[in-house]
Amino acid sequence: MGIAVIYGSSRRNGNSEQLANLLVDGFEADRIYLSDYTIHPIVDYRHSDKGTYPDDDYHHVIKRVLAQDVLVFTTPIYWYGASGLTKTFIDRWSQSLRENKSEFLTTLSNKTAWVIGIGDDQPHLKGIPLVQQFQYVFEYTGTHFAGYVLGKGNKPGDIHQDTIAVATVAQIRKTWHF
Amino acid sequence: MGIAVIYGSSRRNGNSEQLANLLVDGFEADRIYLSDYTIHPIVDYRHSDKGTYPDDDYHHVIKRVLAQDVLVFTTPIYWYGASGLTKTFIDRWSQSLRENKSEFLTTLSNKTAWVIGIGDDQPHLKGIPLVQQFQYVFEYTGTHFAGYVLGKGNKPGDIHQDTIAVATVAQIRKTWHF
Amino acid sequence: MGIAVIYGSSRRNGNSEQLANLLVDGFEADRIYLSDYTIHPIVDYRHSDKGTYPDDDYHHVIKRVLAQDVLVFTTPIYWYGASGLTKTFIDRWSQSLRENKSEFLTTLSNKTAWVIGIGDDQPHLKGIPLVQQFQYVFEYTGTHFAGYVLGKGNKPGDIHQDTIAVATVAQIRKTWHF
Amino acid sequence: MGIAVIYGSSRRNGNSEQLANLLVDGFEADRIYLSDYTIHPIVDYRHSDKGTYPDDDYHHVIKRVLAQDVLVFTTPIYWYGASGLTKTFIDRWSQSLRENKSEFLTTLSNKTAWVIGIGDDQPHLKGIPLVQQFQYVFEYTGTHFAGYVLGKGNKPGDIHQDTIAVATVAQIRKTWHF
Repeated sequence: MGIAVIYGSSRRNGNSEQLANLLVDGFEADRIYLSDYTIHPIVDYRHSDKGTYPDDDYHHVIKRVLAQDVLVFTTPIYWYGASGLTKTFIDRWSQSLRENKSEFLTTLSNKTAWVIGIGDDQPHLKGIPLVQQFQYVFEYTGTHFAGYVLGKGNKPGDIHQDTIAVATVAQIRKTWHF
Repeated sequence: MGIAVIYGSSRRNGNSEQLANLLVDGFEADRIYLSDYTIHPIVDYRHSDKGTYPDDDYHHVIKRVLAQDVLVFTTPIYWYGASGLTKTFIDRWSQSLRENKSEFLTTLSNKTAWVIGIGDDQPHLKGIPLVQQFQYVFEYTGTHFAGYVLGKGNKPGDIHQDTIAVATVAQIRKTWHF
Repeated sequence: MGIAVIYGSSRRNGNSEQLANLLVDGFEADRIYLSDYTIHPIVDYRHSDKGTYPDDDYHHVIKRVLAQDVLVFTTPIYWYGASGLTKTFIDRWSQSLRENKSEFLTTLSNKTAWVIGIGDDQPHLKGIPLVQQFQYVFEYTGTHFAGYVLGKGNKPGDIHQDTIAVATVAQIRKTWHF
Repeated sequence: MGIAVIYGSSRRNGNSEQLANLLVDGFEADRIYLSDYTIHPIVDYRHSDKGTYPDDDYHHVIKRVLAQDVLVFTTPIYWYGASGLTKTFIDRWSQSLRENKSEFLTTLSNKTAWVIGIGDDQPHLKGIPLVQQFQYVFEYTGTHFAGYVLGKGNKPGDIHQDTIAVATVAQIRKTWHF
């Protein structure tokens, strides 16, 4: 039973990555840095007869995500939402719905998801819409939304000063028996 | 006093575009289709000594946006949020903050913004987090958030069946005296 | 097919009442002013062997509510939520759950609900949590949440200046064929 | 520097009370059980020439609240919101605004507030609107909203199984140096 960590930051070693690493340290985890890949915006072909999806890294990334049982979406809070990298990746799920809807949803419905969002401007309050969007996403896919951690940080490393976020992550680890 | 309509859909003539056009028809409007441009994800250089932003269409687009007084953000609701095109564009505002923060914020603080979000799955409820994210964005930039319209549609043209959204748009037009 | 309007204001002829009346004018409606009744706070007996609920007007009011097919919850936005009168009334639904859970839920699941919330401080944004609470209430009871109107007003009569709210109500009426 | 714990439950020794007690144990705290007092719904006299507020326990309770520096609002999540006891108490703040607005707001603006909300039905997600209402309340009063804990419980004592909520509370205590 493995974990996929989907890092949505534009840079390495930022606060959201650091908190996610505290969470998964010692567990088997596939670490997927979205910034390493090229994933183009979705094109909406729901109402077209034809259409070709971008030939980019989406299939590679979604395959790795779907191969794990626990998903940890890890994103800085950019402009009060998930990063564009994260959002663009999720938008592409519409492609998977078109390619094989029932398989895609069945696969996701057997997974458990966590969300980590780190920001600088009152993240515990202004990060709430981000959490609610994931709530609706997981309701749609049938994924169990196990919980989220909103934490405060600006300069890399700040997150360790958010002792409540760090303690929350330590406690979540204790509930993981896999 | 002109309007910039920022279309975030991946395709032309979709429901969000159609509703926005009902809103601005007859007014002077610069119609900006984000899907016509290449705007890469933000790279976070806030904590780097150097760094080069992508050489793409961002400057062209933001310049046109900032040239108008009324901004109409028009987006389909993809996965319960603004489209990746829209989110990635807004993420790039961090570049403008770094390039000239005071000028960027002063300019935005003199504008009025509207948001149109169209989706298929209970948009009036599940589109709320999208609205709240714009609320926080505009609080930060000091932009007057004049209102929003959430409407229901799936196939292009459906939006005309959402008679409440259409009536709302007609009423907003009547309050525009410019 | 009748309407129950549940007025939660502490006074008569306020803005929320005026907007609700624009909505239901000409339709058969049972107008229930919560301020006319004594409804005490819920006492939680879920984990007690015994317990007596307050002998007050709750049963009279809930009976009238359940007798109609369309419910219009009409409340001023007090401190960014439904009025205490409204909230205390809904809290008492826990009593109905204990008295006859399946009948209560079955009855509510066959109804359609609308919510009107009027406030003075950015009601379209700061009234959103109120809407979301009703969203969860109706999800639990299985009631169809048909829509909501958030409007702006302070002094009685102000609501007529919120031309968008008034137009929305006029449009909703046109969709009512009963 | 003392703490006022404002308990909004209808019964003693419930989960919200138990978690609040873990939080404040060993600190000087005035424990205010709203269910011990009679506080009637607000009557809105903002637009009346006269009007008499209910002669009940409101003044006694608000005086004790305002005498402390840290406020811990502790409520079960009833129907996805703060309890009617809690909401009715806050609604009466409108009376204090009328009696002496500047003194009331100045006093509250010097305080720090925490919110504890405990529920049974996905409290970390469905308790969010409750948090957002307090967010807007404290923005209005200028009170520093230091944080919140949403926890899961149904039967009294359940809260101790929510090890993340318990760990969060333990961590918050460590940040309290008064």
